[in-house]
Amino acid sequence: MKITALAGGVGAARFLTGLVKLVREEDLSVIVNTGDDIEMFGLHISPDLDIVMYTLAGLVDEEKGWGWKDDTFQCLQTFKQYGLETWFNLGDKDLATHIYRTQLLRESFTLSQVTVQLYRALGLKLRIYPMTNDKFETRVKTSAGSIHFEEYFVKNQAKDEVLGVEFAGASSAKASAGVLDALYGADLVVVCPSNPIVSIGTILAVNGVRDALRRTNARVVAVSPIVAGAPIKGPADKLLRGLGSEVSAFGVAKLYSDFLDSFVIDNADAAMKGRIEQLGIRVKVTNTIMRSFEDKVELARAVLES
Amino acid sequence: MKITALAGGVGAARFLTGLVKLVREEDLSVIVNTGDDIEMFGLHISPDLDIVMYTLAGLVDEEKGWGWKDDTFQCLQTFKQYGLETWFNLGDKDLATHIYRTQLLRESFTLSQVTVQLYRALGLKLRIYPMTNDKFETRVKTSAGSIHFEEYFVKNQAKDEVLGVEFAGASSAKASAGVLDALYGADLVVVCPSNPIVSIGTILAVNGVRDALRRTNARVVAVSPIVAGAPIKGPADKLLRGLGSEVSAFGVAKLYSDFLDSFVIDNADAAMKGRIEQLGIRVKVTNTIMRSFEDKVELARAVLES
Repeated sequence: MKITALAGGVGAARFLTGLVKLVREEDLSVIVNTGDDIEMFGLHISPDLDIVMYTLAGLVDEEKGWGWKDDTFQCLQTFKQYGLETWFNLGDKDLATHIYRTQLLRESFTLSQVTVQLYRALGLKLRIYPMTNDKFETRVKTSAGSIHFEEYFVKNQAKDEVLGVEFAGASSAKASAGVLDALYGADLVVVCPSNPIVSIGTILAVNGVRDALRRTNARVVAVSPIVAGAPIKGPADKLLRGLGSEVSAFGVAKLYSDFLDSFVIDNADAAMKGRIEQLGIRVKVTNTIMRSFEDKVELARAVLES
Repeated sequence: MKITALAGGVGAARFLTGLVKLVREEDLSVIVNTGDDIEMFGLHISPDLDIVMYTLAGLVDEEKGWGWKDDTFQCLQTFKQYGLETWFNLGDKDLATHIYRTQLLRESFTLSQVTVQLYRALGLKLRIYPMTNDKFETRVKTSAGSIHFEEYFVKNQAKDEVLGVEFAGASSAKASAGVLDALYGADLVVVCPSNPIVSIGTILAVNGVRDALRRTNARVVAVSPIVAGAPIKGPADKLLRGLGSEVSAFGVAKLYSDFLDSFVIDNADAAMKGRIEQLGIRVKVTNTIMRSFEDKVELARAVLES
């Protein structure tokens, strides 16, 4: 069974570590959000690609959910000595990824090609695709103007009121090589429990992706990132509210209703089942909160069986 | 008294820490070899500029003579995980310098301008000039072909037989802004105890520098990097021999004889005084081996009094 997943960062990566216990790694393709990509100190940083790759390679700092485990921050501290802004956390091991990626990009490799180089070197056998190789930047509109998503999320710690979200470059962003084939050729497409606006919404905004999800013969299943009216992690509530969506599993189901076959929601939201089914979506109610490794595997099993 | 120094790496940097105790830092200009500059992982690395800057800022790893003290090598170890060549030692703190320099160069600042940014941020009040902002690459001819100096010195640990040295780009390399003025406007020019071929020889090969040393009204004094027929540090003996020069204070004096007023040689070479004086150069015999901080200050004093 060929599976293709749409993934943001931490939530998706945790879910995928459960999924790869149940399916052959070679049968799994992951399409990753690159709307958060940012250039810092002249280095190309792809936060979600790195989180997915580090997590699946067993190298992630599990407590934080991002970055390399046992990393140090000596370079970052030295940037401070040079009077530079250091709000973006760059570990010393992590820097190897950013430096190598940047070098390859400057040698005219595409982000897709660079990504393959990186995850293969770390021993992964699945396929990881950046959603696009083109410029695509998630920006958050605040009362102080439009700022890069990482500036909103990391620098300002998601404290600004969200007046809107824009995807700069989306209109001309093409899906990277292999992405559309991975959607059309899959038996199952899984929309991971990631932010529906800035992680999944970005992937959906890449030309051809939403159409592929509507048209593919694959069963399309999503896991709700919202449990009992709040996200497990991250600012999804503020972003959903800022865009006028309901902060609930139902609100997310509505955003996905044009392509979704099944939706996996948490026990806490069991009462919402009927409303979601009225959108024409099958609903599976289970525990979606991934505290232990077993939780992750059980959630993946629920998705496969949904 | 305005002093301008010509400097390579470790030997020069150690000497200069003594000199700055005797003169006002603001009166000191240092012209640094950039022939060893190399791009690694897409980063612009200037080994001698960094050694001089770190040493004068009190940040250098004193035992090794290069790199940042208390540095770690987490990024480098991760490069190894990515299957990359890791023969060039890049500390995590050190990387901040290379990343920041590379970023500014890509933003079209010159190496001179970048250098000012860096050393000022580290609190230095003297002036440090890269010898040139142009491409200038020291290459060593070996039986296996011509290789970059750092490849010869660091990767191959100076084990290849030296068939010759070439300065790629020298014919069109212009002195960077301020360099010639610093030579013509000085009261004293000091040629630091650095490799006469690949540290000082490179600076002398930059258009206009050798002429400036011949024509300046400044007194020009050099400290011999060769003591009792061997260099204190580095491969100067192999390089001198490979170019057919005598490996001795006299051999170095001959290379500098067209512009040198005084030469400071070690007690161990006292017997050579007469031969050097026959080249028309005044000779001062003293201890030139810098074991302690006092040694450095005393050597600097000998230079000022020579």
